Amino acid sequence: TPDGNRLWRSLMEMAEIGPIPGGGSGRQALTDLDAAGRALFSGWCRESGLTLETDAIGNLFARRPGTDPTLPPVMMGSHLDTQPTGGRFDGVYGVLAALEVVRSLNDAGRHTRHPLEIAVWMNEEGARYAPPMMGSGVFTGRFTEAEILDKVAQDGARLGDDLERLGWRGTRPASLAAHPVAAYFEAHIEQGPVLEADGLEVGVVTGARGQRWYDAVVTGREAHAGPTPMRLRQDALVTAATLVLAVEAIGAAHGEEASATVGILDVHPHSRNVIPGRCTLTIDLRHADTAVLDTMEAELKAAVAGLTDAGRTVELRDFWSFPVLPFDPGLVERVRAAAAARGLRHRDIVSGAGHDAVYMSMVVPTAMVFIPCVDGISHNPAEAIDPAQAATGCAVLCDAVLATAER
Amino acid sequence: TPDGNRLWRSLMEMAEIGPIPGGGSGRQALTDLDAAGRALFSGWCRESGLTLETDAIGNLFARRPGTDPTLPPVMMGSHLDTQPTGGRFDGVYGVLAALEVVRSLNDAGRHTRHPLEIAVWMNEEGARYAPPMMGSGVFTGRFTEAEILDKVAQDGARLGDDLERLGWRGTRPASLAAHPVAAYFEAHIEQGPVLEADGLEVGVVTGARGQRWYDAVVTGREAHAGPTPMRLRQDALVTAATLVLAVEAIGAAHGEEASATVGILDVHPHSRNVIPGRCTLTIDLRHADTAVLDTMEAELKAAVAGLTDAGRTVELRDFWSFPVLPFDPGLVERVRAAAAARGLRHRDIVSGAGHDAVYMSMVVPTAMVFIPCVDGISHNPAEAIDPAQAATGCAVLCDAVLATAER
Ligand SMILES: NC(=O)NCCC(=O)O
Ligand SMILES: NC(=O)NCCC(=O)O
Repeated sequence: TPDGNRLWRSLMEMAEIGPIPGGGSGRQALTDLDAAGRALFSGWCRESGLTLETDAIGNLFARRPGTDPTLPPVMMGSHLDTQPTGGRFDGVYGVLAALEVVRSLNDAGRHTRHPLEIAVWMNEEGARYAPPMMGSGVFTGRFTEAEILDKVAQDGARLGDDLERLGWRGTRPASLAAHPVAAYFEAHIEQGPVLEADGLEVGVVTGARGQRWYDAVVTGREAHAGPTPMRLRQDALVTAATLVLAVEAIGAAHGEEASATVGILDVHPHSRNVIPGRCTLTIDLRHADTAVLDTMEAELKAAVAGLTDAGRTVELRDFWSFPVLPFDPGLVERVRAAAAARGLRHRDIVSGAGHDAVYMSMVVPTAMVFIPCVDGISHNPAEAIDPAQAATGCAVLCDAVLATAER
Repeated sequence: TPDGNRLWRSLMEMAEIGPIPGGGSGRQALTDLDAAGRALFSGWCRESGLTLETDAIGNLFARRPGTDPTLPPVMMGSHLDTQPTGGRFDGVYGVLAALEVVRSLNDAGRHTRHPLEIAVWMNEEGARYAPPMMGSGVFTGRFTEAEILDKVAQDGARLGDDLERLGWRGTRPASLAAHPVAAYFEAHIEQGPVLEADGLEVGVVTGARGQRWYDAVVTGREAHAGPTPMRLRQDALVTAATLVLAVEAIGAAHGEEASATVGILDVHPHSRNVIPGRCTLTIDLRHADTAVLDTMEAELKAAVAGLTDAGRTVELRDFWSFPVLPFDPGLVERVRAAAAARGLRHRDIVSGAGHDAVYMSMVVPTAMVFIPCVDGISHNPAEAIDPAQAATGCAVLCDAVLATAER
């Protein structure tokens, strides 16, 4: 059985890298702090006898041999990068829970038929470099290596250069073909309020909401903030603000499983006494039901069309998306069975967030284990979890992985 | 009589420094391009026999002696710095019209009792370093030299360091006490649509609208853009967007002489999949009538108060302001008389913009001459004026200055 105290100590030790006010972590993807986080993890892996390898897109794999060398690994994992002002558990929990599974098997002298691997995926968050889930996206063929190497960060860096700088550009191709996987499990904090509200310990994740991300550009006309009469203005920010409220209304109109968010809005030319001439915004729509997601998109397009007038235009571009994705019923059942066997309070749940598991599920049998987080808060330095629940989730992960790795 | 062709050639030559797409100029205050603009102007002044001096806050003065050395100068001027994406005429027109006045007096061998001076005020625009009208503000005692030296630019530079770097930190104190002035005239483009709409050639500026600038900070709660249900969100951007629309409505509710603008809105943490936890915005309210400006401010405060809820707070801080300011009736009458004597179509007008003349008017008899600009567009690269009207405005400036400098 995994050791909850050791898991918690490792979580707290990792949080000392890139601490930010409010108790969170700031280790954005492919920064020196992200590399420092990986270095700490890599040291722990070496102490546990694991073999480390980085693939061509900067995914890190730590391998524990199985008793049957012909079998592909059962993989666990998640990510160590964070949002600009992230919490201590998003991603990190899944990686360190996987490490704790391995450590506890080592302690018990227990071997598995399949090899076990821990994956640390490159840039899951999608903040500094968008979109999210880049490393798993290349690994599963959703993105080409070339397009990802050319991505430019919010701060102007190029992803391929960052990989070289950090020594993360390995030789093994980032692909399932070059790196077969038998099954993939990911433990994660829920990042929402459902499990906590229901008083549950474990979420059996049956799949993920579909996501559609867009870029919008509002073009008006720059003019002087003083002598330009209100009736003659073509203020791009006024239009952008109307769009922000329309997005909010779309989210609110489609129930608990819907979300709609503007996370970025940039104003040009960004001067106190100039009527904004151009605004750029990002829009993120999600729903667990494809038909509803289609409706939400149609509403967004109608809102955008309604905002174009004589002086102002709104352009909407698709930025990134993935469909509603169900996980592998067999593996999901193994998670459910593990929670039930341990007598844990659990329920099925659809993930509101994207995870590397979402991309993996498109090519490999996949399942996830959720644990509650306080107030459902995530992507916030205040993100918090209960140590006992962290241990419980790790135990469920361990049971489901063992059940799979012995086949 | 001033030479309109020479004036136009100088305007076009100045526009070659810091040209930007769309035909405008980008010479933000205290940048190398701003210094290059001054260097060009300084060369012209030397060719015209003027003596140059920079004061302690970086205002540049070019002096032509008078026949009575005991008299203080009659000053003309404006600024050479621009908005980030500014036009070719805002400020520049006033400086080069003043130069053309001097050039034409030189050509005619005409001397004045009072010395004449051309002022190039430091940082009028208030974009890179806010607030606006900094150089004239220190000169007239509205700001202390020390507070202005410590201002920090949008790009992180310190104003005092910029002055040293550019060699603009002169020894003469920036104050009226150290530098008496008999009268101040400023020619400027209207930056609004009134003169053009009325088919007029000259605006006789009787004063300026009062301005009140504010900073607002909206605080909500960062959370994940996916699993966080809409009903539990405390989205700072949704509140900020509501405030943007409230500001627009306040402007629209108080007639042609009212303006209300949000020019800057910054979103934190600025990630596509994080519900914004904090937004900062700037608000600019203007009116020609103090009572109405008070009402607009009261409406803004009510809107702000109405936006604070259980999860979100809005904090409003005064950033900068100046009152409704009438210019000197005697000097204004000289401008009006000059326009009438030349048979020009003119009207009285209240400036919707702040100008260095506004601060000067608080301590020195002051007047302004406006010329129309195409479509009333300013603070936009597309800013345009008619060369004939540029010459006309310069002639009115010249007449009013001569009428004053001979007394
Ligand atoms: N888990 C997580 O925060 N993933 C980032 C992608 C998303 O926004 O859903
Ligand atoms: N003329 C001008 O653009 N001045 C800047 C100050 C203001 O915004 O009114």
